[in-house]
Amino acid sequence: MYLKEIMDEAKKYVGKEVSVSGWVRNHRRQKELGFIVFSDGTQFNQLQLIYDNQLSCFEELAALKIGTAIEVRGILQESAGSGQDYELAIQDFKLLGDCPDDYPLQPKPHSPEFLRSIAYLRPRSNLFQAVFRIRSLAAMAIHTYFQDRGYVYLHAPLITASDCEGAGEMFQVTTLPLEQLNGKVDYTKDFFHKKTGLTVSGQLQAETFAMAFSKVYTFGPTFRAEDSNTKTHVAEFWMIEPEIAFCDLDGVMDIEEDMLKFIVQYILEKAHDELVFLDKFAEKGLLQKLEKLVSSTFTRITHEEVISILKKADVRWEFEPKYGEDIAKEHEKYITEYFDGPVFITNWPKEIKSFYMKQNEDGTVRGVDLEVPGIGELIGGSEREADYEKLRTRMEELKMDISEMEWYLNLRKYGSCVHSGFGLGFERLLLYLTGVDNIRDVIAYPRTPGNCEF
Amino acid sequence: MYLKEIMDEAKKYVGKEVSVSGWVRNHRRQKELGFIVFSDGTQFNQLQLIYDNQLSCFEELAALKIGTAIEVRGILQESAGSGQDYELAIQDFKLLGDCPDDYPLQPKPHSPEFLRSIAYLRPRSNLFQAVFRIRSLAAMAIHTYFQDRGYVYLHAPLITASDCEGAGEMFQVTTLPLEQLNGKVDYTKDFFHKKTGLTVSGQLQAETFAMAFSKVYTFGPTFRAEDSNTKTHVAEFWMIEPEIAFCDLDGVMDIEEDMLKFIVQYILEKAHDELVFLDKFAEKGLLQKLEKLVSSTFTRITHEEVISILKKADVRWEFEPKYGEDIAKEHEKYITEYFDGPVFITNWPKEIKSFYMKQNEDGTVRGVDLEVPGIGELIGGSEREADYEKLRTRMEELKMDISEMEWYLNLRKYGSCVHSGFGLGFERLLLYLTGVDNIRDVIAYPRTPGNCEF
Repeated sequence: MYLKEIMDEAKKYVGKEVSVSGWVRNHRRQKELGFIVFSDGTQFNQLQLIYDNQLSCFEELAALKIGTAIEVRGILQESAGSGQDYELAIQDFKLLGDCPDDYPLQPKPHSPEFLRSIAYLRPRSNLFQAVFRIRSLAAMAIHTYFQDRGYVYLHAPLITASDCEGAGEMFQVTTLPLEQLNGKVDYTKDFFHKKTGLTVSGQLQAETFAMAFSKVYTFGPTFRAEDSNTKTHVAEFWMIEPEIAFCDLDGVMDIEEDMLKFIVQYILEKAHDELVFLDKFAEKGLLQKLEKLVSSTFTRITHEEVISILKKADVRWEFEPKYGEDIAKEHEKYITEYFDGPVFITNWPKEIKSFYMKQNEDGTVRGVDLEVPGIGELIGGSEREADYEKLRTRMEELKMDISEMEWYLNLRKYGSCVHSGFGLGFERLLLYLTGVDNIRDVIAYPRTPGNCEF
Repeated sequence: MYLKEIMDEAKKYVGKEVSVSGWVRNHRRQKELGFIVFSDGTQFNQLQLIYDNQLSCFEELAALKIGTAIEVRGILQESAGSGQDYELAIQDFKLLGDCPDDYPLQPKPHSPEFLRSIAYLRPRSNLFQAVFRIRSLAAMAIHTYFQDRGYVYLHAPLITASDCEGAGEMFQVTTLPLEQLNGKVDYTKDFFHKKTGLTVSGQLQAETFAMAFSKVYTFGPTFRAEDSNTKTHVAEFWMIEPEIAFCDLDGVMDIEEDMLKFIVQYILEKAHDELVFLDKFAEKGLLQKLEKLVSSTFTRITHEEVISILKKADVRWEFEPKYGEDIAKEHEKYITEYFDGPVFITNWPKEIKSFYMKQNEDGTVRGVDLEVPGIGELIGGSEREADYEKLRTRMEELKMDISEMEWYLNLRKYGSCVHSGFGLGFERLLLYLTGVDNIRDVIAYPRTPGNCEF
């Protein structure tokens, strides 16, 4: 049996013999007694195994090293010790896989940098047991939210010849023999007979599906070849991009708020033990922060109003807030504190936003950023420009290559309608949900400049 | 409201005024009456809108073209006509987005090739409404199956420096300026400071997680730069790769069978209308085929036994069945017909299988292919080699680059245990579930040699 199957019905198994396989996470030996912290990873909480020198296998048990895989047979009993409700009194065991002394994941404090260097082992540590379990649950929360509400899940293509944001630095994908290139490149010889790269967003393709199914979402990897070594940048990350027909800017804010509260509630319910641990070791107050979000009111305010509030604030800004310009990290922080909760900022100056956002009369666009206390911008969305001429003009102003995107423009020609969508960076959400402060520690195998291990 | 919200409670809305937005899919006009086939894509079944010349907007309604987006207000009523239970008697409407006569998706038969050339519009057709809705539901079925059973969902990396199968043709990922290369390539200048490509499998990384969480699965894109133009090859596709610790070959067959039946049952329940349509237009007998699978017994048989059966068969083979060699399509077909159901074939000659499969004493490995009537090989799995020396020796025999995969070998050094897993190609599953016969038609934007549109 797996540990979770036993512990989910622990009351039933008390006093009974059970058999379970897993790993020695820690081991404390006394002369006559031994205590093994044991886990198979099917639940966050570990099980204490106890054994005494009455057992014929006492010596073998006492010799077990950290990291060893074992199968144990024993009696589940209520624990007299503190820290756990149950423990397993070992009757017999089988060594499945030994673990030498050079095992790098010894039970002592390790730096995040060291753990990244053994990323294939770190999921065995408490921190990453919590983080990657929450990652899995958060993914399921997202699928559940959208599927229960009738959205169609779309797998947007990864390899693409179009560049959604018109600005992203893209990875090139090729089968050309690089060693044989000599100054010129004949893309008709490449796999797709043209230059291709890795997508920076599935939004444009999601719009094509929204024009057929009304409510759709993507959940897949996206890529940025940005040469940034910061706590918030990785080259490969996962995005959720819902797109909804017959939905305007207000409608999409309703969905964002409802979805975010749903995800947080889901994690609060299904990962309580993990959150308690992370509250202690990753971010003090994490549980309270998440509980507060679920019951909070999200403010809706325009970019112009935000600038007015910032200008009136009695703060020495590093970056002076200005009408018509973007806001800085310090401004985001101030605004969420000012309203004591999440804030939707709408109607941004069009120059600093993407080409596809619906244009207002006054030079703003119907974009919306969701600013959340403690993390800053979490979701970016907009009502999309539904008018063919306006969109085409904007793309021409920005000198975009329209030939590769005629199909996208055509969505405005063949039965266009008001529609809106947003993008949620999955790793950014996880930083918020786990309290972990480096994006490299919420994704299994982070890809960053100069780093593509495992 | 969306169409599904109304129709889910149609009885409640009969005789009442409702308002709904969507698209004109078909339009039939008579002198005094008009019939619009209407859909917003939130359910497979369309709604018939009727209007007569008593309406002040009769002329405008009669002028509506295929593909136009409209908002209609009307009374829901039980339909006297055949083919539908309900219809909507229009009272008023609003034109949201016109659609010119050059709209390519007119309601008449189109070739699959033509529809692929307008892949951004084809989701609006009945066939692709059915296919992509089933794709979305099948993805959810898979997540539901594994999450309900305590599996942790892992996002395996897409960009990688290791090559799982040791044979796959990989796409290269680079930020080097190809136009400036001159005969030699300095990979220390590339984004990751080494040569990288797009993954062909997430299995090896899934194994690292199985050694921490016991039960894990991936569900993500994988890539093959194979220059094949067939009905079953695309360069970018999605794979599900579960990996389970403390699970042997028999155990993994149990899981495969249980999972497959679960998915099929899920689709039978949630996509009945879609399956009825596909049964008519894609594969005659589809519904019966799927229903039969759910109640069928999966046979378990060794490769050697299969060859014996094939040799005894009164058939003129194109390819003669041979002990120690792979089997052909015709053999797969014969075997599933022979057993009248799905067949697990185990214990393959090691030369034709992957390096990571557990080696038996007799020169076979504990691999297992699941052959399913009507589609052939659907799932490939194996018990993994858990012994460090045996695995290393095999990798050396195959002249694999061990330096990039030391971490994978180390899983056999640090608490190794029996573990197994399998790979399910998601598009292959969809061919089976939908009865569609070309893989290009079960993925939104197929990538094949010379084709990377949208």
